[in-house]
Amino acid sequence: MEESDFLDIAIKAKEASKKIAVLSTELKNEALVDIAKAIEENKNVILEANQKDLELARILVENHELTQSVYNRLKLDENKMRDMIQGIIDISKLNDPIGKVLLKRQLDEGLILTKISCPIGVLGIIFEARPDVISQISALAIKSANAVILKGGKEALNTNKVIFSIINGTLEKISGFPKHVISQVFSREDVNYMLKMDKYINLIIPRGGNNLVQFIKENTKIPVLGHADGICHIFVDKTADFEKAEKIIIDAKTQYPSACNSVETLLIHKDFELAEELLKALEKAGITLNPEPDSWHKEYSDKILAYKFVNTLEEAIEHINEYSSGHTDAIITEDKSNAAIFLDCVDSAGVYHNASTRFADGFRYGFGAEVGISTNKTHARGPVGLDGLTIYKYTLQGNGDIVKDYVDGIKHFKHKDL
Amino acid sequence: MEESDFLDIAIKAKEASKKIAVLSTELKNEALVDIAKAIEENKNVILEANQKDLELARILVENHELTQSVYNRLKLDENKMRDMIQGIIDISKLNDPIGKVLLKRQLDEGLILTKISCPIGVLGIIFEARPDVISQISALAIKSANAVILKGGKEALNTNKVIFSIINGTLEKISGFPKHVISQVFSREDVNYMLKMDKYINLIIPRGGNNLVQFIKENTKIPVLGHADGICHIFVDKTADFEKAEKIIIDAKTQYPSACNSVETLLIHKDFELAEELLKALEKAGITLNPEPDSWHKEYSDKILAYKFVNTLEEAIEHINEYSSGHTDAIITEDKSNAAIFLDCVDSAGVYHNASTRFADGFRYGFGAEVGISTNKTHARGPVGLDGLTIYKYTLQGNGDIVKDYVDGIKHFKHKDL
Repeated sequence: MEESDFLDIAIKAKEASKKIAVLSTELKNEALVDIAKAIEENKNVILEANQKDLELARILVENHELTQSVYNRLKLDENKMRDMIQGIIDISKLNDPIGKVLLKRQLDEGLILTKISCPIGVLGIIFEARPDVISQISALAIKSANAVILKGGKEALNTNKVIFSIINGTLEKISGFPKHVISQVFSREDVNYMLKMDKYINLIIPRGGNNLVQFIKENTKIPVLGHADGICHIFVDKTADFEKAEKIIIDAKTQYPSACNSVETLLIHKDFELAEELLKALEKAGITLNPEPDSWHKEYSDKILAYKFVNTLEEAIEHINEYSSGHTDAIITEDKSNAAIFLDCVDSAGVYHNASTRFADGFRYGFGAEVGISTNKTHARGPVGLDGLTIYKYTLQGNGDIVKDYVDGIKHFKHKDL
Repeated sequence: MEESDFLDIAIKAKEASKKIAVLSTELKNEALVDIAKAIEENKNVILEANQKDLELARILVENHELTQSVYNRLKLDENKMRDMIQGIIDISKLNDPIGKVLLKRQLDEGLILTKISCPIGVLGIIFEARPDVISQISALAIKSANAVILKGGKEALNTNKVIFSIINGTLEKISGFPKHVISQVFSREDVNYMLKMDKYINLIIPRGGNNLVQFIKENTKIPVLGHADGICHIFVDKTADFEKAEKIIIDAKTQYPSACNSVETLLIHKDFELAEELLKALEKAGITLNPEPDSWHKEYSDKILAYKFVNTLEEAIEHINEYSSGHTDAIITEDKSNAAIFLDCVDSAGVYHNASTRFADGFRYGFGAEVGISTNKTHARGPVGLDGLTIYKYTLQGNGDIVKDYVDGIKHFKHKDL
């Protein structure tokens, strides 16, 4: 694709974003229900396309050019298809995040300020192998009234193309639904074009490793909702309950080791008396303990757990604020005051007391779905659902009101919330 | 200053940000009241320093190296000093934006998710000649529990240094108030250092022209809260009330022509019958009408108003969405349905009906103060007060809870808002 072709896609997406911004909740939900139905009806076509991708991927895995974990994420099955379909239906049932009145204030008699939620505009989403992401992101974009340009992983090319054409084929049949709300691009070059289109694209969400996120941040003026590494910590305090510690650490490390909310580093208070027993229990659960990591910044994505002893709660907090990726960090303690200090002082998107870091997830938080997990300190943080895809505008309803009257002291602001 | 000196400032600001993040509301407000007092007591010292800056600036104005309007913004007087002091007191009286519970949800029995507002961390603020900005930004930073690195205009060097030392001298005397919350840098080189410090600085707010904002966006990975040009529009609809139109346009163009919320472009419906009379009235009010602008993107910052006739409301909306800087745009109409369409379809931070664009301002909106006006589509939009300087974290309080129980279907999420 030439840059001018991408520009054409971006311009059409911008136009589409203006039209979907004012679409009724009913029409958006109708579109979602229809997409879910169409995916259900075309399940076999999707699985066949996925089979093609899997055959190519299998060769890459055999040649060590692709990891088994990417292969697993690429593979669709009946369960994943059911989740995909249910996910879209779930999003159709969520409240419309657009048009919510966030503030209504009488500035003065007959002068009413309203802060109202609205879509961001055009989203650029860059994601890796998982083809089930397309339907989820498309559904979130439709519900939040944003247009979206999707760039999927090349491994999932056949699957992505089929899902994309099912979605757009469905949307075309819905009377009044704007064209070009969902676009798809395929090549690595397209990512470079995307980064330049700050006139048309309002937010880029890279769903991938830290390197991808850093590359994108360095090469665009467009705001980036970062979904970077997950270097999550668990601190076992002096008064930790042994059973809770054992259960939580095993869950956080072994339940899904390649997830970004898995724990990578264990900090143990030097006065926690059952430390030896705890470490043995973790090894028994199949965890490889690493007391001398090359770096405390490492994400293992495997059943490997770095650990060290600390002298105080403060030392644990300092270590975490230095090495955590700001994703999710937990304390295990029976001391409520220490828990409160930890929750206050650890500067991460999720800070937990006596719970597994694996809870950091849009579905588990009850957001219905997530576009990713943000470790940003602006706009949206933690699991990002529909609300993170909105912004707001201020409307002001007057009756010939001018500022001079207030500057001259003829009139005075009331600032009364309604 | 060497880059290593700036790094030292950035590291200290980051440390300070962790300490101020957990400071009590009382201590923050005490600091604000004390700063207001200290500025009051040192009014003459400040005015003397300002006099020095003004003398240098006067020469630059005479040599046409500085505009009169920059000179005016640089100049402090009794009125501006009173506003500065009152502004700090006002901020001390606002509700604390930190520690607000934004969501409290029972995920399951004994597993409580809380979304709680918290500071962003370290702000980098780059501003131009106005020295009264220092105290305002410092007060907003303290109240919102952020550390801040300020880079002021070189024209205000003497004034800025004095105000800065009064603020930090006051903070040093307050027991328990962390050091290095407010830092100041001076040179253009410091801006370049600032842009590189994404490890320590979380948000950059350039208060200046579009060129400055664009330069910064192009040269940093740090999120930028853009305060770009103000290309504001007023559309006079077919059914506009003549008197309201006249009053509002004159206010929006002449009350303070160099403000970013002043109107630059007038669009008139071709069937508005009193168009000729309106244009005459505007000229009589000292406005130079420009029917053939070189560009519809121009910000005049003067009593010059570009205008054109449009055939329909839709054409007006299209023109605005193409050429507006997304700041503030207004419709003047007696047709409620047209007003509603305009408010829905114009994609700007402020969209007004029968009111002057000059109302776009944090004080007038009742925010107490503003750090600037954002034309971004993420994080914060429109006048940005304390809320725009906050983000949130999620805390999760459990009792040994693990994800495996939910994946295995032993437990089920309740997702009950509390």
